[in-house]
Amino acid sequence: MKSKRETMEKIAALIRRSASAAVLCHMHPDGDALGSMLGLALALERLGKRVHRVSPDGVPPPYDFLPGSRAVRRRLPRDLPPLAIVVDCDGLARLGPLARRTGQVAHVVAIDHHATGKAFGALRWVDPSAAAVGALLSELVAALGVPFDREIATCLYTAILTDTGRFSYTNTTARALRIAARLVQAGADPGAIYQQVYETKSLAQAALLGAALSRLSTADEGRIVLSALTRADFAATGANDSDTEGIIDQIRAVRQAEVAVLLVERGGEVRCSMRSRGRADVARVAEALGGGGHPQAAGCTVAGPLARARKQAIRLIAAELGPRA
Amino acid sequence: MKSKRETMEKIAALIRRSASAAVLCHMHPDGDALGSMLGLALALERLGKRVHRVSPDGVPPPYDFLPGSRAVRRRLPRDLPPLAIVVDCDGLARLGPLARRTGQVAHVVAIDHHATGKAFGALRWVDPSAAAVGALLSELVAALGVPFDREIATCLYTAILTDTGRFSYTNTTARALRIAARLVQAGADPGAIYQQVYETKSLAQAALLGAALSRLSTADEGRIVLSALTRADFAATGANDSDTEGIIDQIRAVRQAEVAVLLVERGGEVRCSMRSRGRADVARVAEALGGGGHPQAAGCTVAGPLARARKQAIRLIAAELGPRA
Repeated sequence: MKSKRETMEKIAALIRRSASAAVLCHMHPDGDALGSMLGLALALERLGKRVHRVSPDGVPPPYDFLPGSRAVRRRLPRDLPPLAIVVDCDGLARLGPLARRTGQVAHVVAIDHHATGKAFGALRWVDPSAAAVGALLSELVAALGVPFDREIATCLYTAILTDTGRFSYTNTTARALRIAARLVQAGADPGAIYQQVYETKSLAQAALLGAALSRLSTADEGRIVLSALTRADFAATGANDSDTEGIIDQIRAVRQAEVAVLLVERGGEVRCSMRSRGRADVARVAEALGGGGHPQAAGCTVAGPLARARKQAIRLIAAELGPRA
Repeated sequence: MKSKRETMEKIAALIRRSASAAVLCHMHPDGDALGSMLGLALALERLGKRVHRVSPDGVPPPYDFLPGSRAVRRRLPRDLPPLAIVVDCDGLARLGPLARRTGQVAHVVAIDHHATGKAFGALRWVDPSAAAVGALLSELVAALGVPFDREIATCLYTAILTDTGRFSYTNTTARALRIAARLVQAGADPGAIYQQVYETKSLAQAALLGAALSRLSTADEGRIVLSALTRADFAATGANDSDTEGIIDQIRAVRQAEVAVLLVERGGEVRCSMRSRGRADVARVAEALGGGGHPQAAGCTVAGPLARARKQAIRLIAAELGPRA
């Protein structure tokens, strides 16, 4: 097996000899996908390359403050460039409608940190030990000899900040913090970026969070902490379905919660999001209900009504938690 | 003026020649005060010193997970040690009932990062450019030749994490992140520490936050976002007055909030907490109402009822914000 370092050097060489390139990220992009895509694009431009920034779903807020986000397109150009660099994708399918044409590019490079997925691309640099793709790109940018400037550093810092959950997840390694330090040294402004990413709730989002927290309940001797949002809550607050993001983490912040659950009414169905502190594998619960995810964060959609979905989730999670120690 | 480096070396020399020492922090201790005090205490013990950990208010949760917190006393020992190291105090008065006896110790050393305050101590190492006293102590521990171990690193990482607002405030410097990286390398566990400090809300605290967010209102064309908590909210949720901590920051997270305000009914009075995104100086508003604070975070207590306090706060904040740009 080639070493990761060698692979990175090969990618750097391929970039150097390409006059133009497309940099792509996955559908429903998060901070790591967008920060990585935009940071790499800037670095290639500093080398004099013509760069196409491509995101199938564009740049949703709050990430539209990132340098270069206005240049992002939802499609590849009519004339395909010779090089496509796909970041943070554990499979070509995650490019959605762009997967087919991307596969037609002469050189496809994948840069990722997911442990699983469906391999693609002639050159693959996949390092699951990296906290974020942004951390890998920081190394690539350095290998390319491009000095970090404020704009590149802002993109890559945002990638690392968001994929480590503001330096709170278990992937917050010494390496991640060291790279973050280097990016701040180069001009990334942690306070300003934090405000842009995390302090731009709408009034409706804040009110929806309030509704969810006003209605917490517990089950299984307090080890499961739950809340539920009905269509009436969305109507009363003016919030929409994407405004539920982040609410589950605030439920998990309750001390005794081994597992946090948020149930959201959607038509006749109920979306069930789960977070575990580590003892229960909520991916197994989600899979049993036709969903999926990671051991500590998973979700599924089940038949309504709410009360039935709640009962079902509690039964399966309690079984997964097992008897009290 | 002596250089900071020289001062640190002098403190290290004084520590080396003292067989015992007291390490003290201020009343109502925060994460930096306790993490710094406990981290330094451990380092001195590694050097074979007899150490007294002294905190006038003990070690309140969530910080009681910190290594060494069980050894903390609320008073100095009957026989005063020859050396007292006071951390994170911008004046001896912040030791409260312990100020007098601490002043009687032969060698008093102050290690602090506040820009203002009332000088005390024969040896003073005050560096306002440091994100946290924990960052200064990381340098002192290294200068003492004590290797960082998991316990020391946990204390000092907690100090930096909390005083930078989880790496979100403007004091999140490259230096702070570099030191954090070194502490993680030495064994501090960012995920576990984050959970201990920030994910240990009681159900009552979460419900009180829910009540506050369910009742947001705006004033001054949306530039002021407010909420209020009545005694009925405390009764309904089972929360107490200290459970309001952190709520104001969640109000400030609303996008358009130039100033966030939380009003809390307390008997016939109303406690008014304010946060500014930078445009308004809320300390001036608080001072006008008999309180005080920093330009971006201030508070005061005014006469009730709530509606009157709300009106008064809005009028003063709107004047401070000035006309819309």
